[in-house]
Amino acid sequence: MTIPNLNIVPFVSVENMMKLVLEIGVDRFLTDLAAYIEEDFRRWDLFDKTPRVASHSHDGVIELMPTSDGQLYGFKYVNGHPKNMREGRQTVTAFGVLADVGSGYPMLLTEMTILTALRTAATSAVAAKYLAPKGADTMAIVGNGAQSEFQATAFKALLGIDRLRLYDIDGSASRKCAANLKGQGFDITICKTAQEAVEGAHIITTVTADKQYAMILTDNMVGTGVHINAVGGDCPGKTELHRDILLRSHIVVEYPPQTRVEGEIQQLAADHPVTELWQVMTGKAPGRDDQRQITLFDSVGFAIEDFSALRYVRDQLRTIPRYDELDLLADPDEPRDLFGMLLRQATKQTA
Amino acid sequence: MTIPNLNIVPFVSVENMMKLVLEIGVDRFLTDLAAYIEEDFRRWDLFDKTPRVASHSHDGVIELMPTSDGQLYGFKYVNGHPKNMREGRQTVTAFGVLADVGSGYPMLLTEMTILTALRTAATSAVAAKYLAPKGADTMAIVGNGAQSEFQATAFKALLGIDRLRLYDIDGSASRKCAANLKGQGFDITICKTAQEAVEGAHIITTVTADKQYAMILTDNMVGTGVHINAVGGDCPGKTELHRDILLRSHIVVEYPPQTRVEGEIQQLAADHPVTELWQVMTGKAPGRDDQRQITLFDSVGFAIEDFSALRYVRDQLRTIPRYDELDLLADPDEPRDLFGMLLRQATKQTA
Repeated sequence: MTIPNLNIVPFVSVENMMKLVLEIGVDRFLTDLAAYIEEDFRRWDLFDKTPRVASHSHDGVIELMPTSDGQLYGFKYVNGHPKNMREGRQTVTAFGVLADVGSGYPMLLTEMTILTALRTAATSAVAAKYLAPKGADTMAIVGNGAQSEFQATAFKALLGIDRLRLYDIDGSASRKCAANLKGQGFDITICKTAQEAVEGAHIITTVTADKQYAMILTDNMVGTGVHINAVGGDCPGKTELHRDILLRSHIVVEYPPQTRVEGEIQQLAADHPVTELWQVMTGKAPGRDDQRQITLFDSVGFAIEDFSALRYVRDQLRTIPRYDELDLLADPDEPRDLFGMLLRQATKQTA
Repeated sequence: MTIPNLNIVPFVSVENMMKLVLEIGVDRFLTDLAAYIEEDFRRWDLFDKTPRVASHSHDGVIELMPTSDGQLYGFKYVNGHPKNMREGRQTVTAFGVLADVGSGYPMLLTEMTILTALRTAATSAVAAKYLAPKGADTMAIVGNGAQSEFQATAFKALLGIDRLRLYDIDGSASRKCAANLKGQGFDITICKTAQEAVEGAHIITTVTADKQYAMILTDNMVGTGVHINAVGGDCPGKTELHRDILLRSHIVVEYPPQTRVEGEIQQLAADHPVTELWQVMTGKAPGRDDQRQITLFDSVGFAIEDFSALRYVRDQLRTIPRYDELDLLADPDEPRDLFGMLLRQATKQTA
């Protein structure tokens, strides 16, 4: 019998996360993670849900996103600082923790910058499974930054989307995206305008990064029957779609109290009807019920998706042990004797 | 010029925290930390304040405690599980993060089980500086668990309290406390009842651990002129003092919206007058104004104290580099190229 080291918490560094993703394979990782997300959304009622706890400042926001299913507790720390890009930093960085509700002890600490990119793409693809028109094979991606390749890969893995139409105000971003996706079975067209990108697309993904009200899509650009996967409008004051598009769309969201403040629907009245993604998944509400309908997944990212990602990584580490052991928790021999542990350390040091 | 490694976050393990505390010295650590706490309480208005974000379950609670002064952001993860003690685990474990508000990047990750014990004691001693009767030299400590020696040491370092009267329902806890404090200049009496412990004490510290309404002190046990340092009543449904004691006391709290829910004053009407510690420190409200007055510091622990502790540790690490470097943040060469970083890792692995 091994005595557990109660002080140790497994830690997945950025390098180990990359190794884990590559050993599993990006496509399988996204597909399996999507299944975990769907599983958790299907048991929506079990979760302790709260809008993220945000600390806003001039340059950005720092957020904590906690949730629990009663057995496990997870939270993510994540920032959003658009100006970071110009200083060679990530707009969004994140890390997260999974803990045991029974003891309150953390069970896993992991980088979540890469993991968030994966879970965001997996969530978009899961939503599109229910909302995209039948036979969709072409996706426009407007905004070709850090999230774009993950979106493309998830939509290919889960929905078989293999024709991409890329647009970014910075052409080098589109070329970077196309280069990264080369040789992975995509037919890629780089477009000169957003208007050109959406032509013939069955799915339109908007994923730009500026923290401001923007008009990435105007009403005339969106024809009947498309599915819009709106990923970039994800904090107060940041939207990507013209309001008129929203008024024509069947709108699906993750968690209304959060999306009303952060999503595209911040442009609409507080009581504008929206459907929750978990309701669509469980058949409590319709997804797409007409091939001519415009569907809109107004994605802002919710704590349960991070919880699913933490849970998935925890399960994978059992067979692919890509982690370090972190001496994070004080573990005196006698639990009431924290001070004595300090005294014994002093003795050790002078010995 | 050195190029900063943007992926690296300094990490203070439990072992390094012990080394840091011992190299600085417990007394000086507590005194210096108390000064940081006082400095932050004196600029109270600058802080983004919110009650902790709690996830309650049958066996305990997991909490996130964020705050920011506009330049730095800090949060602590902390659990409270009274049953843990019986399973050889800590009732309370914690870790925390300090981050740069400008970029949202974490600057420090540290164990906070030991650090919380130190900051709780330092906060109690700071409050007592303003509230304890003049000439106080004797303190009763009711509850001799993990926090007791830290309280004793802080009160000696900051107020010169050197006579202790210990009581715990488990006598072995009192003996452990006395043994740990041996040779540090205390005159210690182990008492058979709480009644006996409070006799002749100028300061009464209550710091028991059970998660329930308890009656550690009854009204008749508390004479005029004492200062009560009530540390153990710190979550909904957990109190230590008889309500009548509160009605006779000048009550000082950290942050009313949190203390009304978690502290001893959860027994009182929601509008019962209380004084905030920062007001006492800045002279906006009286501390003790009569030697016969009963003062009560109804301590529940507030995020700003953890912020001060994180800030203090960050400053100490500049000269005493007791930390490891954690590969916590993804840092691609081109910030928009997170996916490309993954591809290059794949190339590295097959090379």
